[in-house]
Amino acid sequence: MPKVSNKGKQMPESPIRKLVPYADIAKKKGNKVYHLNIGQPDIKTPEVALNAVKNADIKVLEYSHSAGFESYRTKLSQYYKSHGLPIDVQDIIITTGGSEALLFAMGSTMDVDDEIIIPEPFYANYNGFSTASGVKVVPVISTIDDGFALPPITAFEKLITSKTKAILICNPGNPTGYLYSKEEIQQLAEIVKKHDLFLIADEVYREFIYDENDKHYSVMNVPGIKENAIMIDSVSKRYSMCGARIGCIVSKNKELMATAMKFAQARLSPPTFAQIASEAALETPQSYFTEVIEEYKERRDTLVSELNKIEGVKVATPKGAFYCIAQLPVKNADDFAQWLLESYDNNGETVMIAPAAGFYSTPNVGLNEVRIAYVLKKEDLVRSVQILKDALRVYNAK
Amino acid sequence: MPKVSNKGKQMPESPIRKLVPYADIAKKKGNKVYHLNIGQPDIKTPEVALNAVKNADIKVLEYSHSAGFESYRTKLSQYYKSHGLPIDVQDIIITTGGSEALLFAMGSTMDVDDEIIIPEPFYANYNGFSTASGVKVVPVISTIDDGFALPPITAFEKLITSKTKAILICNPGNPTGYLYSKEEIQQLAEIVKKHDLFLIADEVYREFIYDENDKHYSVMNVPGIKENAIMIDSVSKRYSMCGARIGCIVSKNKELMATAMKFAQARLSPPTFAQIASEAALETPQSYFTEVIEEYKERRDTLVSELNKIEGVKVATPKGAFYCIAQLPVKNADDFAQWLLESYDNNGETVMIAPAAGFYSTPNVGLNEVRIAYVLKKEDLVRSVQILKDALRVYNAK
Repeated sequence: MPKVSNKGKQMPESPIRKLVPYADIAKKKGNKVYHLNIGQPDIKTPEVALNAVKNADIKVLEYSHSAGFESYRTKLSQYYKSHGLPIDVQDIIITTGGSEALLFAMGSTMDVDDEIIIPEPFYANYNGFSTASGVKVVPVISTIDDGFALPPITAFEKLITSKTKAILICNPGNPTGYLYSKEEIQQLAEIVKKHDLFLIADEVYREFIYDENDKHYSVMNVPGIKENAIMIDSVSKRYSMCGARIGCIVSKNKELMATAMKFAQARLSPPTFAQIASEAALETPQSYFTEVIEEYKERRDTLVSELNKIEGVKVATPKGAFYCIAQLPVKNADDFAQWLLESYDNNGETVMIAPAAGFYSTPNVGLNEVRIAYVLKKEDLVRSVQILKDALRVYNAK
Repeated sequence: MPKVSNKGKQMPESPIRKLVPYADIAKKKGNKVYHLNIGQPDIKTPEVALNAVKNADIKVLEYSHSAGFESYRTKLSQYYKSHGLPIDVQDIIITTGGSEALLFAMGSTMDVDDEIIIPEPFYANYNGFSTASGVKVVPVISTIDDGFALPPITAFEKLITSKTKAILICNPGNPTGYLYSKEEIQQLAEIVKKHDLFLIADEVYREFIYDENDKHYSVMNVPGIKENAIMIDSVSKRYSMCGARIGCIVSKNKELMATAMKFAQARLSPPTFAQIASEAALETPQSYFTEVIEEYKERRDTLVSELNKIEGVKVATPKGAFYCIAQLPVKNADDFAQWLLESYDNNGETVMIAPAAGFYSTPNVGLNEVRIAYVLKKEDLVRSVQILKDALRVYNAK
């Protein structure tokens, strides 16, 4: 019998997926499950995007250009410029989600056994993309006690070897909600310049920033690192169209873009319907974003203030995106999360949370932390935290 | 300045792309270019598929299941069964095009420096996917003189090493149009069983078979190789919806599918709109296929008979798909293809052809061959071959 590859064996399972059978059990028992575990927003997709697909006059659903519609790239460049990002048409390749943009970035910058430094906790699928690309993740730990701020530059420099090719950040961060300051980004810029590394910034949550005094600072705005900076973007969260699967890889480094283009050509083109929706989504009125951000801000504030009412819970207030990491008064959040679904209910209701250990690549870190997504409406968040509070009491009294 | 990866440098450019600037020059001069170089059919996409997207009532464009809609997989399994392929729901993972299915198959079966044997000439992007996966392509040459039949089994066995993990075939073949007989597939089955290899069959052109006595024989129908067989499929050609970017990987090997699923989870989900179209496309009436196959058969017959009228041209009559390889009375088809665009016109018209060398991985093979796609209507094919004939005369008289 033929055997699967070691790479395939090493591919990580989703840290959330192993809990799904337990969620199914809870639902089969008739319990309602509040999903705090996933990043699928309940926010409506802009109608202008959905209508464009409805009204598209297609006779033959053809391949598009491998870099994506030229019309879309042109408008996207204008969109970025109007948001202060100096991005030209030729700096953009449209990809199948931010996922594919990350794969192209890794494939174009790293060979097998090369190393990429990532502040952890980080988006769990960075592990998957790294494994698929044969690349080694070198984590640098950020902690809840520091609110997940950028670890000191010395911590990065200690980890740089001849194999190090890139630093990857998510800004604002999934799962931490941390927003890097201009100074932090500039510190990273200095390191990548000094050591000739790429700085890959996953900026898909760029718009989701909740405090007036906070401002997103993109790697595309940093002077002097034109050749180092790679931006990853996506329409998934901006327009609540995760199912479109449209993102892009952006860089001023021409050799890098020519290389990424070869990966893009091999897979022919990004999806056509979704490009139509994404191009039209650029016409979304500002009022949509104002409402959405206001809604998320209220959700964040509600969630954090409710969590802070629970004794023994510590939460790093997220500045952006729609996740937070909470430390719970339990030894093993994995066991607690399973127990919540398998053995607990509060008037027929329970919650599903994502154990945070899956967002670290260092073993045995974050064992008492969970990631909570605030993608549910406020009443549901209040009720969810109420359930969580009661559950912690019952669990710890076992 | 940071450097791109060696993998990125090794990624092949599209063998067609380098001619695109010359096609642009021809068009700028006002010449009409008949595109015999691409596999983008002019056939209409079934209305049932396009209408399903128009009529979809979407409020939030959500992620789908990482394996694709369950409803789609269920119906797809029924579709396969009704076509004599014993494929169950759990044997299917929906992918972003056949391209992603191939990447998942390679990633799940092969580690860096492992080897995959592929009869050449083969679909040029197999080189790209192999390079992206760090896998070495070991070609076994099939020749125009044998009509691109399966090379003898001894030719395969000579190439098998401890690094060999899989054999990849395209059936019917792009670029050859060759259809493997039941006996040939059985021979391959014996090899993969004997040597514990995977047999990956790209069967995306399954329906495009033109002679009544010819029948497609799928690797999913071969007894005794359940654990070895992996089928790659796609909606791109079947329903002329290349832009959807929907395909699937199919296997009875549970460990393989669990492994492929981890790659699928990392990239979250296949595109939602396109899945709606693909699921609806399963309702396409049989009359659509009857007409389409009849049309392609006429195109093939027209193309082959016209090509055969040119002295010095040899063509292997394709039994399926919509390509053929033609040997031309020139030394270097690359130079001829460029000349056609750059320096030649016949009453303001010329043709664009794909030099076949890009479909071989052995250097200096197929230098006088071209791939011709018969995706244009008959009148255009006749005119194209007329142009080709005149151009060969002028080119060879230079």
